Order: sequence, then C-alpha cells, then structure tokens
Amino acid sequence: MIVDCAHYKDGRRQHEERLSPEQAAGLARGDGDFVWLGMRDPAPEELRRVRELFGLHELAVEDAGRPHQRPKLEDYDDSYFIVLKTAHYDEARERVEFGEIHVFAGSGYVITIRHGTGGDLAPARQRLEARTDLLRMGPAAAVWAVLDKVVDDYAPVADGIEDDIEEVEQDVFDDDRPAPTQRIYGLKREVIEFHRAVWPLLSPLDALERGAFPQIPEDLRRFFRDVGDHARRVNEQVASQRELLTSVLEANLALVSVSQNEVVKKISAWAAVIAVPTFIASVYGMNFRDMPELNWPAGYPLALGLMALCVFGLFSFFRRIQWL
Amino acid sequence: MIVDCAHYKDGRRQHEERLSPEQAAGLARGDGDFVWLGMRDPAPEELRRVRELFGLHELAVEDAGRPHQRPKLEDYDDSYFIVLKTAHYDEARERVEFGEIHVFAGSGYVITIRHGTGGDLAPARQRLEARTDLLRMGPAAAVWAVLDKVVDDYAPVADGIEDDIEEVEQDVFDDDRPAPTQRIYGLKREVIEFHRAVWPLLSPLDALERGAFPQIPEDLRRFFRDVGDHARRVNEQVASQRELLTSVLEANLALVSVSQNEVVKKISAWAAVIAVPTFIASVYGMNFRDMPELNWPAGYPLALGLMALCVFGLFSFFRRIQWL
Amino acid sequence: MIVDCAHYKDGRRQHEERLSPEQAAGLARGDGDFVWLGMRDPAPEELRRVRELFGLHELAVEDAGRPHQRPKLEDYDDSYFIVLKTAHYDEARERVEFGEIHVFAGSGYVITIRHGTGGDLAPARQRLEARTDLLRMGPAAAVWAVLDKVVDDYAPVADGIEDDIEEVEQDVFDDDRPAPTQRIYGLKREVIEFHRAVWPLLSPLDALERGAFPQIPEDLRRFFRDVGDHARRVNEQVASQRELLTSVLEANLALVSVSQNEVVKKISAWAAVIAVPTFIASVYGMNFRDMPELNWPAGYPLALGLMALCVFGLFSFFRRIQWL
Amino acid sequence: MIVDCAHYKDGRRQHEERLSPEQAAGLARGDGDFVWLGMRDPAPEELRRVRELFGLHELAVEDAGRPHQRPKLEDYDDSYFIVLKTAHYDEARERVEFGEIHVFAGSGYVITIRHGTGGDLAPARQRLEARTDLLRMGPAAAVWAVLDKVVDDYAPVADGIEDDIEEVEQDVFDDDRPAPTQRIYGLKREVIEFHRAVWPLLSPLDALERGAFPQIPEDLRRFFRDVGDHARRVNEQVASQRELLTSVLEANLALVSVSQNEVVKKISAWAAVIAVPTFIASVYGMNFRDMPELNWPAGYPLALGLMALCVFGLFSFFRRIQWL
Amino acid sequence: MIVDCAHYKDGRRQHEERLSPEQAAGLARGDGDFVWLGMRDPAPEELRRVRELFGLHELAVEDAGRPHQRPKLEDYDDSYFIVLKTAHYDEARERVEFGEIHVFAGSGYVITIRHGTGGDLAPARQRLEARTDLLRMGPAAAVWAVLDKVVDDYAPVADGIEDDIEEVEQDVFDDDRPAPTQRIYGLKREVIEFHRAVWPLLSPLDALERGAFPQIPEDLRRFFRDVGDHARRVNEQVASQRELLTSVLEANLALVSVSQNEVVKKISAWAAVIAVPTFIASVYGMNFRDMPELNWPAGYPLALGLMALCVFGLFSFFRRIQWL
Repeated sequence: MIVDCAHYKDGRRQHEERLSPEQAAGLARGDGDFVWLGMRDPAPEELRRVRELFGLHELAVEDAGRPHQRPKLEDYDDSYFIVLKTAHYDEARERVEFGEIHVFAGSGYVITIRHGTGGDLAPARQRLEARTDLLRMGPAAAVWAVLDKVVDDYAPVADGIEDDIEEVEQDVFDDDRPAPTQRIYGLKREVIEFHRAVWPLLSPLDALERGAFPQIPEDLRRFFRDVGDHARRVNEQVASQRELLTSVLEANLALVSVSQNEVVKKISAWAAVIAVPTFIASVYGMNFRDMPELNWPAGYPLALGLMALCVFGLFSFFRRIQWL
Repeated sequence: MIVDCAHYKDGRRQHEERLSPEQAAGLARGDGDFVWLGMRDPAPEELRRVRELFGLHELAVEDAGRPHQRPKLEDYDDSYFIVLKTAHYDEARERVEFGEIHVFAGSGYVITIRHGTGGDLAPARQRLEARTDLLRMGPAAAVWAVLDKVVDDYAPVADGIEDDIEEVEQDVFDDDRPAPTQRIYGLKREVIEFHRAVWPLLSPLDALERGAFPQIPEDLRRFFRDVGDHARRVNEQVASQRELLTSVLEANLALVSVSQNEVVKKISAWAAVIAVPTFIASVYGMNFRDMPELNWPAGYPLALGLMALCVFGLFSFFRRIQWL
Repeated sequence: MIVDCAHYKDGRRQHEERLSPEQAAGLARGDGDFVWLGMRDPAPEELRRVRELFGLHELAVEDAGRPHQRPKLEDYDDSYFIVLKTAHYDEARERVEFGEIHVFAGSGYVITIRHGTGGDLAPARQRLEARTDLLRMGPAAAVWAVLDKVVDDYAPVADGIEDDIEEVEQDVFDDDRPAPTQRIYGLKREVIEFHRAVWPLLSPLDALERGAFPQIPEDLRRFFRDVGDHARRVNEQVASQRELLTSVLEANLALVSVSQNEVVKKISAWAAVIAVPTFIASVYGMNFRDMPELNWPAGYPLALGLMALCVFGLFSFFRRIQWL
Repeated sequence: MIVDCAHYKDGRRQHEERLSPEQAAGLARGDGDFVWLGMRDPAPEELRRVRELFGLHELAVEDAGRPHQRPKLEDYDDSYFIVLKTAHYDEARERVEFGEIHVFAGSGYVITIRHGTGGDLAPARQRLEARTDLLRMGPAAAVWAVLDKVVDDYAPVADGIEDDIEEVEQDVFDDDRPAPTQRIYGLKREVIEFHRAVWPLLSPLDALERGAFPQIPEDLRRFFRDVGDHARRVNEQVASQRELLTSVLEANLALVSVSQNEVVKKISAWAAVIAVPTFIASVYGMNFRDMPELNWPAGYPLALGLMALCVFGLFSFFRRIQWL
Repeated sequence: MIVDCAHYKDGRRQHEERLSPEQAAGLARGDGDFVWLGMRDPAPEELRRVRELFGLHELAVEDAGRPHQRPKLEDYDDSYFIVLKTAHYDEARERVEFGEIHVFAGSGYVITIRHGTGGDLAPARQRLEARTDLLRMGPAAAVWAVLDKVVDDYAPVADGIEDDIEEVEQDVFDDDRPAPTQRIYGLKREVIEFHRAVWPLLSPLDALERGAFPQIPEDLRRFFRDVGDHARRVNEQVASQRELLTSVLEANLALVSVSQNEVVKKISAWAAVIAVPTFIASVYGMNFRDMPELNWPAGYPLALGLMALCVFGLFSFFRRIQWL
C-alpha cells in the first residue's frame, strides 16, 4: 500500500497530491531534487514494481519483503538500505510493541516501507516539509527525518519500562503484595528485545556522524549526531534497566526467603502456644490412683488457669522476640 | 563417498552426469571455469587421492579428516580452507543436531566435504546452477552458495529453540506444572553449543564482506555481506536466548521458593485446624473429680459443637489471610 | 535566571558587577579576552535571546532547554557543547541527588547553564579568578574550572555511598538486625545511576587530555588530564561498589538461609522436648485394667519425674549439638 | 638433568648419542644447522652453565629457574624465551595436573626445560626428526614441535573435563544421588586454572601466525597457525565449560529447593494422616458422662474403623495431589 | 621525613651519608648522574621545599600531598609522576594492608614518597646499588627498582589470599563447620580492592615495555617488561580468585540449602517415630465400654511392646532411606 509519495525540489514539496511510483521514478533526479515514496506492508508485486522503477538491489529487496531483519545500514555504492525497528509502548496492556521500517535511499529518491503497527512516518514528513533548509540537502535529509522519528519514539518506551520497573519494585518491597516474579521476567524479556532493536543502530549512526558517507552534507551530520546521541541515551537507559531487573529478581528471591522465615517463626510460635496446654491436659488425663490435684475441689479451674497462664506467657514471650 | 561432481563454465553446468575426481582435476582451470566436487564422510584413501589431485595443503587435509573442528576460514595463498558447523532442529526429539562441512576452494575448483547428519548441499548446488550470473564468478560463488545454505539453516534452529523457551516459560509460570529445571538446563547447553557454531563464523564473514580477499569479485561481496548479516542476526538471537535462559532459571528458583512458602502456609493452617479440637478433647479427658461440664446432659454434644466451631473459625480465618 | 556574567581580559575580571547578556555578547572577542555567562534554569525566552546573541547551534540549544541529557561533549566547529551531570550526597536522607550543567564554549565566550539542585559554580568561578595564569588561557580555562568542580564533587558522593555500603554490611552480618534487602537494592540503583553520570564523561575527557582539540593550550591539557584522572578514580570506585553490592546481596541471601536453618533447628528441638513427656502422659492415660504403676503410691510423682528427666535430657542433648 | 641433546643439520640428526651442553654450544651455528638441548628440573648450577654457554639473558634465566610463570613469549632481539603450561588429565584421580615447559630459542639452538610432571617432549622430538622438510627450517621448527605437542595435549584434558561435567549433570538431575555441589565447585576451579594456562598463549600464537617474527619461514607459519587454531578451539571449549558449570550450579540449587519442597509435602501429608485418628482417639478419651457411642457394643470397632477410614481417605487424597 | 638521599654517578653511590634536599638539588644533573631522594609521609612544607628545589609540576605535587590516588603514570614532558599502591599481607590478622608510593622522576633526579605502612624501599635501593650496570642508566633504573619491589611484593599478598580461599573452601565443604559467609565476603572485598591496586598499573607498564618513553634505554625496557609480566601474573591470579569467590559463595548457598534439607528430614523422621506410639496410647485411652484388650492381663505390656515395635520399625525405615 502506498501511503504518500511526493516530489521535493528547492526545499519545497512540488505537489499536494500523491504521485504514483511511475511518476515518482520519472522525476527522481539529483540531490536537492528528490522523491519520497512511503509504503506500508507492500504486496510482493508492488515491491517488484518499485524495484524495477528505481533499480534497487535484489538482496535489499529480498530483505525488505521479509520482516524480522536486524537493524542495519547497508551501502550499495549508489544507494543505501536501512532497517530500523520501531517501538511503541502500549499503555493499556503495559507492553512494548515492535514494528519495522525499511528505507531505500539513492540519488534522487527515498523509499520508506513500514511493516507492522507503530512507526507512523507522517509526522516525520510534515516536520521535514517545514524545514526548507534541510529539504534542500536531498534524500539524506529524509533519512534523517525517519531516523529521528524512530529514535525519538524510543524515549517514551524506555520511560514506560522505567515506570513498570518502579511499580515492580513497589510490589517487591511491599510485604502485602505477592512476589511479582512473572512480571519481572516479562519486563526483562521486553528489555532484552528492546536492546536488540536499539543496539545494532549505534554503530551505523556512529559511522554517519563520523562522516563515513561523503554524500551526506557536513551540516546534516550534526543532525545525525543528534539522533545518535539520543539512541545512545536510550541504549544506556536500557542497559541500566537490564541490570536493575537482574537485581530486582535477586532482591525478590531474598525477600521470599525472608518472608518464608517469618512464616515459619509465626507458625512455630503458635504450635508451641497450643502444645504446652495440650501437654498439661494429658498429664491430668493420666490414670494414677494417687493424683492429689484431681481431688482438689478447685483442681479443674486451677488446671484451666495454669493452661491460660502458659498460653499467655508463651504468647508474650514470642511477641517480645518478634516471632508473632 | 562422492555425492556429486560437476564442471561449470560460462555460467552453466557442462555435463549432467557425475565426474570422477580424476576427470575433475584434469578440468580445473580458471575463475569462471571450475569444478565443484561434493563428498560425504570420505574414507581416508579418498581424501588422500583428492589431496594429490588438487594439491591441497597437508594441514588442511589433516583437519578435514578429523571432524570436531572449530568454524574457521584459513588462507593458503593459492587456496582457502573453510570449516562450517551445520545445525538442524529435530522437531520430534526437540533437540539440535550438529554436523560439519569442510570446503577447499582454489583457482578452478571447490571441494565440499560433509561430516555427520544435516547440511545437505544439493539445494545449494541447484540454486547456484539456476544463477548464471553468479556461476560465472567462479569458485567464490560456490563458496557463497554453501555458506548461504548453512547460515540460512541456522534460522529455523534458532526459531525452534525460541519455541522451546516459550514452552519452558509457560511451564515455569504455570503453578500446576512441575519446575522444568532440567529442560531449562538442557536448552542452555544447546544454546551454548549453537553459539560456538555461529560465533566464530562472524569474523571471517566480516573479512569477506570488507574485501579482505581480492580474488572475490566486488559484486559477490554483497552476497557474502548478506550471509554475514543473517549470521549476525542468528548470533544476536542466540545471545538473547542465553540471557533469557539465565533469567528463566532465576525466575524458576524464585517461584520454587514462593511455592514452598505456599505449601508451608497451607500445611501449618491445617495443623492449627486440627490441633485446637485435639486440645479441647484432651481437656475433657482430664480426670478431675469436679468437672461440671462432664455431668451436663448436653456436655458431649456441646464439646463436639465447640470443636466444630473452632475448626470452622480457624478455617475461615486462614481462608481470609489466604493461607488456605 | 542569570547568576553571574563577567568579562575577563589579561587574566583579570574587568568589572565587579554582573553584565547583561547583551553587554557580554558585545564584548566577546578572542582567546584571552572572553565573557563567562552563568545561568540557572533559564526560561525558554532567555535561552532564545542568548542563542541569538552568541549564535549558538539550534541542536545544542534544543538539548540545553531539556534536562535529562546524557553527559557528552559535542564539537560544533566554532564552538563546543558540553553536558555534565552533577551529583550531591544528601547526608540527611542518605540519598544522591543529581543535577545537570550545560556548557557552551566558543571563541570569546563561555555560557554555563545549571538545571536542578546542586552544582553551584560560584566556587569554580572564584577559584579561576584567583589564577591569572589560567584565566589568560581563555574560555577553555573556564571549561576546565567547571569540569574540575563537577568531578571534584563526585568524590564525596562516592565516599557517602561507600559509608552506606559499610553500614549495610554491618546490618547484613549482624544477626540481630533485619536483612536490609531493600536498602541494598536502593544503593545498587543509586550506584547504577551514578555510573551513568560519570562513565560517559571518561571518553571526552580522554580526548581532551590527548589533545584532540587544538584550541586548548598545551599547558591546560594537564589540568584536563588531572580532571580525567579524578573521574577515572571515581569511575573505578563506582565499579567496585557495584560488584560489592552484588556480593552483599548474595551474602545476604546465604545468611537468610542460614538463619532460617537455625530457626528450624531451634523449633524442632523444642517440639521434641515437649513431645516426649506428652507421649509419657498419654501412656499413663491408657485404660488397661492391669497397669501396676498406676497403683503405686509414688506412681504420679515418679511419672512427673520421668517427664522432667526426659525434658532435661533432651534439652541438654540439643544444647550440645547447638540446636538450642 | 639433561634429557637429550642433539645436533641437526640438513634436516637430519647428526649423532644418535646425547651431546654435552659444551659440545652443543660449540656446534650451535645458523638456521638450518642447530642443536636442541632438552633438560628437566635443572639444578641452579646446570642452568648457570647453560646460560654462559649460550649467552642467555639474565631475566629469562631467572624466570626459568622459578616455575609458576604465566604462559608468555618474550622477544630478546637475538633470542626468544617461551613459557608454556602443560596439562595432563589423571584418569584415576579425575584431576588435571599442570606442569611447565620453558623454551629458549636463538640462532642455532633451542633449549627446552621441563618442570613438574607431564609434558614429555620425546614424542615431539621424534615427530620432528621424521620431518626432514621441517627440520631444515631450523630452531623455529623445534619451537613449533614443542608448541604442537603441548597444545595437542590440551585436547584430552578438555575432553576429560567434558566427561566429568556430564557425570555431574547426571548426578544433579538424578533424584537418587546426592547434590554434587563440591564436585561442581572442584571442576569449576580446574576449569579456571586450565583457562589461565591456555588463554595467555592465544595472543603470542596470534603474533606468530600473523608473521610478527620475520625469522620464521613463511611455510612454517601455517604450522603455527594450526597450533593457534587448536589452542583457540580448546579455549572456546573451556569458556563453554565455565558457563555450563555456572549453570549446573544454579540448576543444582533450584533442584535442591524443589527436592526440599517435595520432602516438606511428604512429611506434612504423613503428619495429617496420623493427626486425624489421634484426634478421634482423643474425642473418645473424653470423660463426659453421656457419650452414647461409648456404650454401644460395637463402639470400639466402629471407632477403629472410622480411624482406618480417615487414614485411607487422607492417604488417597494426598496420593492424588501427588504429595505422597 | 627524609628517609635517604644519595648521589649516584658512574654506577656508584658517591657518599655513604644522607644528603639534604638542597645538596641533592644542586647535584642533580644528567642521565647517568642523578640523585635519589626518598621521603616518607612528608609534611606539607617539606613537599613545598622539594617542589621548589626540583621544579616539580603543581598538579603532581598536589596529588602527592593527598594519598588515595589511583595508580597511574603521568608524563610532564621533562618529568614523570608515578603513583603506586603497595600491598602487604598481615599474616596475624589475615588481612591485606594497602599503602602508596609516589615517584617523581626527571632528568638527574628521582624522588620517592611513601604514604602509610608497607612498601619499604630500602631493599630496592640496596639491590640497585649492587648493580653498577643498571645504575649507569640513570633515574629510569631507580624507577625500575621501585616498580620491581612494589610488584614483587604483590606476589605474597596474592598467595596469602589464595591460602585464605583454600581455608574457606574447607570450611564450606566441611559439614561440621559453620558456613563462612562473612569471611567469603570479606575476602571478596579484599580481592576487589587489590584488583584496583594492580589493574591500573598494567597499561602504563605496557607503554613502558613497548618503548613509549624514548628516554628509557633499550636494555632497561626488558627489565620493565619483566615487572609488567609479574604484574600481569598477579592480575590474572586476582581475576581467578574473584571468580572463585563468586563460585564459593554460590556453592555455600547450595550447601546451606542441602543442609537445611537434611535437618528437615531428620526432624520429620523423629516426629513420626514419636507420633505413632502417641497415637497408640490415645487409642487405649478411649473410654469405650467394650475394649477387650483393656481387660487382657497382658494388655498393658503388649501395648508397650507394640509401641516399641513401631518405634523400632520406623527408626529402621528412616535409617534405610537415610533420613536419620
């Protein structure tokens, strides 16, 4: 499905309407004069048509047709193929959802392909269209706009996970709530997957900002450095979260043991409280002929009183040593 | 055992039938004109004959005769020796099986030797024979075809392990199933072994795509980069699985403790439920002369009622605090 | 809010009073002749005005307006943008508080912006104003003064955490105090966050001392090396603390288990001490016709004596095997 | 003690008998013409004599007199000093024994010194004497022969440890065998020590195969690469074993907890099975005047029957929930 | 406090007596002709005087006045400043004590400053004075002598820790000794601190042996390499100890759990042994009118016999399943 397709020249969009890929391919020319074709979950035949129109490399197109690629930036001499993972934090389900964006960028054209949910590129396009100075710099500016959008979208995800971790911490350290082992594990799984989305981006972003691609104008490199800096920030945050979750799991384990200890103490104390009067009752249930207490008029109440005294004494004792 | 042996020239297979190694050695000539000899578990004398016919290096042949090599790419000036680990996921037994492929590639010839199960190279040969453009590039194209096949076969293995991990997670977090400690450990062992098969490949694949071997045509390098990218993807997936399995083992440990805690609570609650009426019975088993309740006509039913009340009260109490 | 703004020339402050940004921008000239403008939590319009006056880069100003950046040093050809995390150890609450300082340094000017609490730069300015030799070296000297202040402030934070760890160790190894799991975890969280403040600084400080920025005079580089050395010292201390805290958590877990073991032993010993006399009482509560002991005149006291003997024997036994 | 000492020229041993160090020093000349002096646990005066005869460097000789060096290769311009750790797996005691070999190699001579058990170099010498082509390459060939022997001897050690790990795994996962914590720890200790023997070798072997030492003939380098490849293989195997042992220890811990859980359940079930009939007996031991059951002729057998029923019911119940 | 101060020329000490710093500063000249001033815990004014006499850099002197620096080697063009951590193993208290040595080395002078206990440099000076050949090489030789002394002193510390670890292992695996959790943790703390003393030295020692400082004579570099090799040896030993201690802590935890399991089994077995005869006694304490056994003349001894049989049977059973 083609989402949008426009021709940019002299820093401005040339037509409001959506061009067809054929029209776009006819226009694609030079650096400041380029088309940006945005697609979403394209059908195989759409992809084939675009491949022929723009002369894309077979290996890149093969990857673009199959999602679940790792993030990367591949240099095909006259063009680039970029794979990005988009991430979106679903507040309602407290889960991170991942999508994918593939970008082909060559002289005079940029093609962006979205797979899965998330990663809407319309805001990126709008933002770029408002910046004549950047638009003039050609396709690399559009690549920047996409990268910037994708990486900026990582921040709320990392923050959402941060919030979840704080909730989990409260569960862990609050005696009244059950140990959230499963949720901690689920978060760890998400953080590991998120790390796999962000981490492989750092090295190509580094290459971009260090100027490994001479086609990219000097002024634009700072914008890529800015994106790289944000990606590094998210990456370090994710690394910290990973370590925190490992520690939470360990703290959780220690607390479960401590809590088991408490339970064992409490139970044992109560067992003692009941065992002693039971023993007293057994004594006075013995059938010896000569047991003087049995014949005392106050024998029974005294025995009951003795039991009550024992219960009270034991109870106080266990209270004092904090077993009860 | 010789599986297949063919002569390729001008991008096409020259004969349908299988050549003998002697015929092949006589033909081996230049870059676009080469033979591909495929063997399987060769006998020592077969290996010796091939060594003499193609002038292979003694150290490489020594390695090829002994399986259980580590994956590597060795440069012998005029030829290359490559060791690959094949992996196959056996659905029925839910186990990964490893095999080995050794490749000798020199000017005008490619020799592939399979050890153990898995890693059938016929599909790789067929795929290459369908690509005249690649076949023209000579022995390096055959090396690529083998590498591509082996690395592509890693993906279903990684996915099979992924499925196993998800099953294990369900077992861990489902209270009714026993803790799958042994299976988690078995998976970890497999993942470690798989990592040892994939990881050593990354560095020679990196060298291949960076152009460390000038004999490889520029256009083919992208195909090697594609293989390298897939290998990196599998490698990162395996690294994540490794970390996940460590976390699962920890979560499992925490849940075993939690579950033990539950058991201890439940047991203790029942012990209390039975201890209190037993105590009451002991009291009325005492032999004091003056125990007025004993002579009440309704003494016995009242005592039984008191016991029932205690049992009911304790039961309700433990229900409320969720020990039962 | 503008905290201070001064013009420095020939190694001396030119006026005692605070200049306005407009005055400062008019003066900003060359290397030994520069203005230092100090701001705190600036309003967006203040920032915009300063940006226009000094011609700062849009991306740097965008970052400066939003706190929670990662520490970094960015080179904008004619100017530098530096982000620093300040850390302050709050003795009363035993917590580390983090703030941020952003520095713009260009030919003839240094602009420092503080966010959040902590990181007062007045002492840094005073110290620099007392050093005519350094002041003559221009804006880089002011950058050094700020860096030196921020990094020197890390040392008491690391020492405060060190003290906390020692307290926690005492809690862990003292049987009478409860296991400080939550505090250990809290410290670990702080150490991880502190690490994120210090670690990213090391690489730009390394670049500074290795002479990656030719504008910085040779003599000043040693001062940056000194700062770098202190930062590395703090970083290594933090790395050790991280590892120590992991070990403390593990030791804590082991001790909780040991202590549970002690409790179980103690409880069981007491259970045995009471179970044996209860059993004796049950025996003499049996209703056999011929139980000679029952008719002995000393039967009852003998039975009580037997019970006492059992209690005493068991008690001594459990004392000896150190269960009680 | 001098084990063997021979003069090699034109690829052949010149005399069958053992030369004295003095004779050998007189012969030592050039590259293809060299002596190989093999010593074992030399006395200080022997070492001093050899030092003077061959002009060895004082620091190297000092190290050679003291075992427990780390593996290394040191370049003394006109000579090399190499330290190797030998490893031998003692099947009977299931333990790894470490020894040391020191090698001095210079123009025209090779001196090998063995310390401790293991690492017999006679097979290495015999193997080399059978290879005229290698012997012609001079002292470097003897160094290769020693390295090859030492590294080849690592493989059975790694395999022996592998077997031990498999035995330990069976112990861990077999419920009837006690938890082999001490053995796991002992294996881990061995693996760590083995790693310290193998790992430091990798970097000098890498330098050898990359051609850092121009004295070594091109053709021989491949033989060093072969040794390096085997060392890397062992090193990766050891790294995997290290990780496996960590996982085994964790799995062991989880299984101990699971098994404790089983024990607690079983015990509690039996406690319940006995507590209920005891309670019934207590009820009929009460002394109420009006307890109709007591006067039923079949009261006693009925009571016993009730008890049996309870025991049977509880037993069946606990069987069903798998506590028994 | 000035410990010793001497003038060395032509490889020999010029005067037996101690020079004053002023005399020494007047003599300090060139490479083979230099003074070595040794100080210990110098007062600030002493340090100031030395600084003026020898023209030391302010930043280096500032560091030298404050202990607790990290080990480092700083290059001030015409001089070097070196910080070393000394370590000493206190046998009696089984603890490692750390001190510090600061070294200033320039053309014609070496100044060594000791802080804290340990690290007596007199042996280093004596050893150097006995080596005319090294003394001729100037101040670098004195730096070597100090480094060699400090690093050689690390070995007994590492060995002392090794012994402690072995003691701890015996405690862990000996059932009769209490779990040495606190001692394991204490050792881990020491090892971490020791690592911080040794590790930062490796990189400057590497630079020294690779010839990064052209002032150091070629022949002396091998002596620095020797020191570097010993430091690396200690560093690897410390790294192994770190890992061993982590494993010991884990093994300790597993054994505590195993031992708890044993205790629980033993207790439960005894509980069963006493519960069954108690139950029998309760049965014969029931008050049914028709309980034939009660009227048997041998009823009582038979009941006691039954109880004894049960106890014996249960006891044998629990012995066989190894719970007792």
